[in-house]
Amino acid sequence: MKPAGLVSLVGAGPGHPDYLTQKAVRRLREADLVLHDALVDPGVLAIAERAEWVDVGKRAGRPQISQEAIQRLLIDAGSKGRRVVRLKGGDPFVFGRGGEEALALRQAGIPFEIVPGVSSAIAAPALAGIPLTHRGVASAFVVVTTADKAVSTALIEALPPGLVTIVALMSFGNRAALATQLLDRGWPAQTPAALLLGAATPRQWTWRGALNALAACEPPAESADAPGTIVVGAVASLDLSLVHGELPPIALASSVARE
Amino acid sequence: MKPAGLVSLVGAGPGHPDYLTQKAVRRLREADLVLHDALVDPGVLAIAERAEWVDVGKRAGRPQISQEAIQRLLIDAGSKGRRVVRLKGGDPFVFGRGGEEALALRQAGIPFEIVPGVSSAIAAPALAGIPLTHRGVASAFVVVTTADKAVSTALIEALPPGLVTIVALMSFGNRAALATQLLDRGWPAQTPAALLLGAATPRQWTWRGALNALAACEPPAESADAPGTIVVGAVASLDLSLVHGELPPIALASSVARE
Repeated sequence: MKPAGLVSLVGAGPGHPDYLTQKAVRRLREADLVLHDALVDPGVLAIAERAEWVDVGKRAGRPQISQEAIQRLLIDAGSKGRRVVRLKGGDPFVFGRGGEEALALRQAGIPFEIVPGVSSAIAAPALAGIPLTHRGVASAFVVVTTADKAVSTALIEALPPGLVTIVALMSFGNRAALATQLLDRGWPAQTPAALLLGAATPRQWTWRGALNALAACEPPAESADAPGTIVVGAVASLDLSLVHGELPPIALASSVARE
Repeated sequence: MKPAGLVSLVGAGPGHPDYLTQKAVRRLREADLVLHDALVDPGVLAIAERAEWVDVGKRAGRPQISQEAIQRLLIDAGSKGRRVVRLKGGDPFVFGRGGEEALALRQAGIPFEIVPGVSSAIAAPALAGIPLTHRGVASAFVVVTTADKAVSTALIEALPPGLVTIVALMSFGNRAALATQLLDRGWPAQTPAALLLGAATPRQWTWRGALNALAACEPPAESADAPGTIVVGAVASLDLSLVHGELPPIALASSVARE
């Protein structure tokens, strides 16, 4: 009988290897197989050099791999005794479908674990100098995606304008609709907003402006399909950016996906 | 003239060194001085062995160090060319007052940087097998603290019961009031809830139950002042706990604070 494998659902953080946790690094070093979604930084690839890397990302212009197929790959590899890392941008339990994968693994009796990561919901604004909470400015935030239109619409309807910071993930393509909903709900046109694409990657692009200008902001083509975070609320006017020039990481080669 | 120092506002994650980022580890290794809040894991202490450690935590039974005094310490050390780590539980920009410290440092012209960390708001539930979002169950969450009573009350009033997952930080002492507010607002008595104390530390203690039992849950004395995360919503009934037995970390000695 083969020894049991281990499937680790690992949060990779926003992109640069600096924001991998020590546990994520250990799991990558030990991995036989890494299933990843997005473009992966060469520094992250280098950590799991001996592993087989499989891109299961769902991106425009690629044949879609279904969630069920990903789960079958995880179960299959785990049942063969392999050390598997399922590498997810940010944190595996924040819009990462990590819960579904964990359930499937548990039902199949495959040993697995969750390795929390640095969520882009928090890190992307932080790296742009925007704190989601700030004394006297905001003491709560919501994390939402316009990909679930029913919930995001109901949430925007319910929230009094300006009460909390709004963080919208996977909502770049819906930024016009999001801005319109907020404006219709009574958020002032001049409410500070920010759009953060590709935080902690070479495709990093940051836009700041008023809520009523969010719809029209246009990133350069190379950043337009990078993971994006939208922040709306008074904190988005803060720019606690770095006096020290080290961040964002500047020594990076461009990201590559090993296909 | 002395060389400029660098003050790094570093998120330590939930407690165990496994959840430090690579950048946090690097900054701890380089540090001359570490200002920390909470009890620090011996594994974290060991990384910054050569540094001076100063506990500036505001905890029951200790003389209070004001936020202004902490900021003066940071500015003073930075202006003397020291490498300083301001170590904060979770992420420095989520209820960490990191924004205030960043502002003070910028105003003083001291080089600084933000090193995002794994927020307990996400990691504490994840380590207990609770995903904050889960397809078909929850697709948004709010992070709030009852320490700001006006905002948390307004938020609970505004949110339709069950629409999003509620994550309350620094709210353990107010759990009875929080539960009452939610029940009064119409959240069903049987809404799943969880209380996660000291996640990823030896004081870890987890309670799960119905919302109407949250007020009465009583942790053991050694966990009662550990950092706590309350989760309310359908996801709290999920238990995607680990088949593999490695987590929570079991090889830890008890936490110590170097005074």
